[in-house]
Amino acid sequence: MTEHPGLGPHPELGYTASLIDRAADRRDNDAALAKLLQDARAAGYVVGGEMVVMKARDEDVNPLFSPAEAAALGPVRETIFLGLLGDTPRFGFGFDPKAVEPLKARNDLKITDLRTIAVQGLVGTDHLPPLAEAKALIGWHARHRFCPNCGAATQVVHGGWRRDCPACRTEHFPRTDPVVIMLAIRGDHCVLGRSPRFAATMWSALAGFCEPGETIEEAVRREVLEEAGIKCGRVRYFRSQPWPFPSSLMIGCHAEALSNDIVIDRTEIEDARWFDRAELTQMLGRRHPAGLTTPPPVAIAHHLIRSFVEDGCQVLA
Amino acid sequence: MTEHPGLGPHPELGYTASLIDRAADRRDNDAALAKLLQDARAAGYVVGGEMVVMKARDEDVNPLFSPAEAAALGPVRETIFLGLLGDTPRFGFGFDPKAVEPLKARNDLKITDLRTIAVQGLVGTDHLPPLAEAKALIGWHARHRFCPNCGAATQVVHGGWRRDCPACRTEHFPRTDPVVIMLAIRGDHCVLGRSPRFAATMWSALAGFCEPGETIEEAVRREVLEEAGIKCGRVRYFRSQPWPFPSSLMIGCHAEALSNDIVIDRTEIEDARWFDRAELTQMLGRRHPAGLTTPPPVAIAHHLIRSFVEDGCQVLA
Repeated sequence: MTEHPGLGPHPELGYTASLIDRAADRRDNDAALAKLLQDARAAGYVVGGEMVVMKARDEDVNPLFSPAEAAALGPVRETIFLGLLGDTPRFGFGFDPKAVEPLKARNDLKITDLRTIAVQGLVGTDHLPPLAEAKALIGWHARHRFCPNCGAATQVVHGGWRRDCPACRTEHFPRTDPVVIMLAIRGDHCVLGRSPRFAATMWSALAGFCEPGETIEEAVRREVLEEAGIKCGRVRYFRSQPWPFPSSLMIGCHAEALSNDIVIDRTEIEDARWFDRAELTQMLGRRHPAGLTTPPPVAIAHHLIRSFVEDGCQVLA
Repeated sequence: MTEHPGLGPHPELGYTASLIDRAADRRDNDAALAKLLQDARAAGYVVGGEMVVMKARDEDVNPLFSPAEAAALGPVRETIFLGLLGDTPRFGFGFDPKAVEPLKARNDLKITDLRTIAVQGLVGTDHLPPLAEAKALIGWHARHRFCPNCGAATQVVHGGWRRDCPACRTEHFPRTDPVVIMLAIRGDHCVLGRSPRFAATMWSALAGFCEPGETIEEAVRREVLEEAGIKCGRVRYFRSQPWPFPSSLMIGCHAEALSNDIVIDRTEIEDARWFDRAELTQMLGRRHPAGLTTPPPVAIAHHLIRSFVEDGCQVLA
C-alpha cells in the first residue's frame, strides 16, 4: 500500500486476489467431486439471481453454508465446484430466485445483492472473489438451460463448468464478456460520464463491450468516440477485474485524448464532461463542494481515476 | 517499424488495425441499413463455417462481393453490417457451409479458410480485420439459432448484432471469449509449449480461456501453473488480438516465472520446455538447426516471443 496526501492508503480492488486454487483437474472427475462434497470442511456460497444468502447472528454475517445447510434452505439447482482454499473445498449452490424470496423473512439469514455486500463490506474481502466466481457461474446456468445450437435442454457436467447437449452433442462453456472501461486523458483533464442508472451525484469512466473482430485498444477508441465524440490515440492497459453483473471482465485502460469537444450519445449515456485532477481529488476524497463522487474503491473505475490523479499523464507512459 | 539485427522490420499483427468505422448507430435503424445495402458501392465478405469464398482470376484474388453477387452464389443466411470504409458500406454474408461445398468446383472462385488467407497473404492485410469481424459474427449466428434461456428459435435483428427471442423476449448479443496467451520468463529463458494440433516443428506461447471470477493476471498465473507447473509473479500486459476461431479475444502477456521445474499437464499440452533468446532468435528467423519454428507473424504469440528476444526481462518492466 502506498500513501497519497489526502487520499490515504490504496484500498483493494474488489473481487480480485482470489485465494482459491480452482483445481480444474478435479472438474471432470465425478468421484473426486463427490468426495470433496462429502468432506466435513466443505462449504459454499448460496446464490439465487442477484441475491446472496448469508447466515446472520447479531452483527455477525457468514456467507458459508455446508452442503447440508444449503440443501436445508431449499432445492439446490446447481452445485458448482469453485476450488480449494488450502485443503478446504469451496462450492457455489445455485438457487431459483423464487426459492430465495421466502427466506427473506428469516431473521437468522441476511439476504442482499453482491454489490451491496462488496460496497458495505458485509463479509471479509477474501470472500469477494469466490462470490464473484459463484455468481457468474450460477447466473450463466440460469440463462443457459437450453442449447443455442439446437434448442434442446442441456445437462450440467464437470462440476458446473460445462453444459452438454444430449441432442446435438455440443459442449457449452461459461460465458465471460470482455468490457473496456477507460479514462480519456488530455493534460490535467480526463472525461467522465454518467449513466441514467447512476446515483445523481456519481460520475464514472466510460465503458462498453469489446466486440467481435476488434482489439482491446480498438474497442477503447471506438467506445470513447461513440459515447463522447473524443478521438483517442495511445491506449495503455491498467488493470482488470471480474464483474459478475452478470458476466463481465472489466479491462481498465487509460487513453490519450486527441480532441477536446465532447459530443454526447444520449442513447448511451446521460452526460459527459472534462474533470481536472483537483476536482477528481475532491470527488475521490468525498469532499467535492457539489457532492459529486466517483465510484467506490470496490470498482476499477475508482482506481483508474485515482491513478490519473496521482500520476497524471504518466499513466500513458 | 523498427529494425532488429537479423530479424528485419516488425511485421503487422494479423486481424488488427481495422480501417472500418463500425457505425453502430445504424444497426438499429432498418431504413438506414436497407439504404446502405442498396448503395452501389456496398460490398462484403462471404463466409460459410471455416470457409471464406473469394473471387479469383488468374493470380488475382478479391474477397469482396456486391450483395447481388453474394446472393447469386446461393442463399444468404445472414447479412451483417460490418461498418463503413470511408463512405462505402461493408457487410458479411453468412452461408450454410453445405452451400459453400458445390462452389469449390468453380474456377472463378478461391475458397479456403481464414488462417490460410492470413498466413499466405492471399488478400491485402486491410481485409483481415473485417474478415475477422465477419467470421466471428457469422459463426456466432450459426451456433446460436436458439434461445439458451428457453429453447425457442431466435430472430436476427440490428443488422446482425443481436438475436431476439420471440418467446421469452431475451436479447442475445455476440459472444467474445477472452483468452490469455503468455510467456513465462526467467532471466534469458521463457517457456514455450506444444499442442498435439501443431505442426511437428512448431512451439508457441501457452494459452487458455479466462474464467468467470478471475482477472487477466490471475488467469495467466493459473494457466501457466496448470499447464507447465511454473509459478508466476508479476504479469505485464503486452497487446491484444481478435482471433475468430471461433470467437476469441487473445490477451497477450509476459509473466515473471518464479520457479524452474516444468511439470506438464499432458491432457492440455503435448510438451513444454525452456528456450533461451538465442534459440528463439533462430526460430523466429527460420534458421533453427533442428527446424523448430515459432508461430507466424500473423499470430500474437510471434510478437510476444519477438519482444522478449529484443528486450529480454525488460518486457516485465
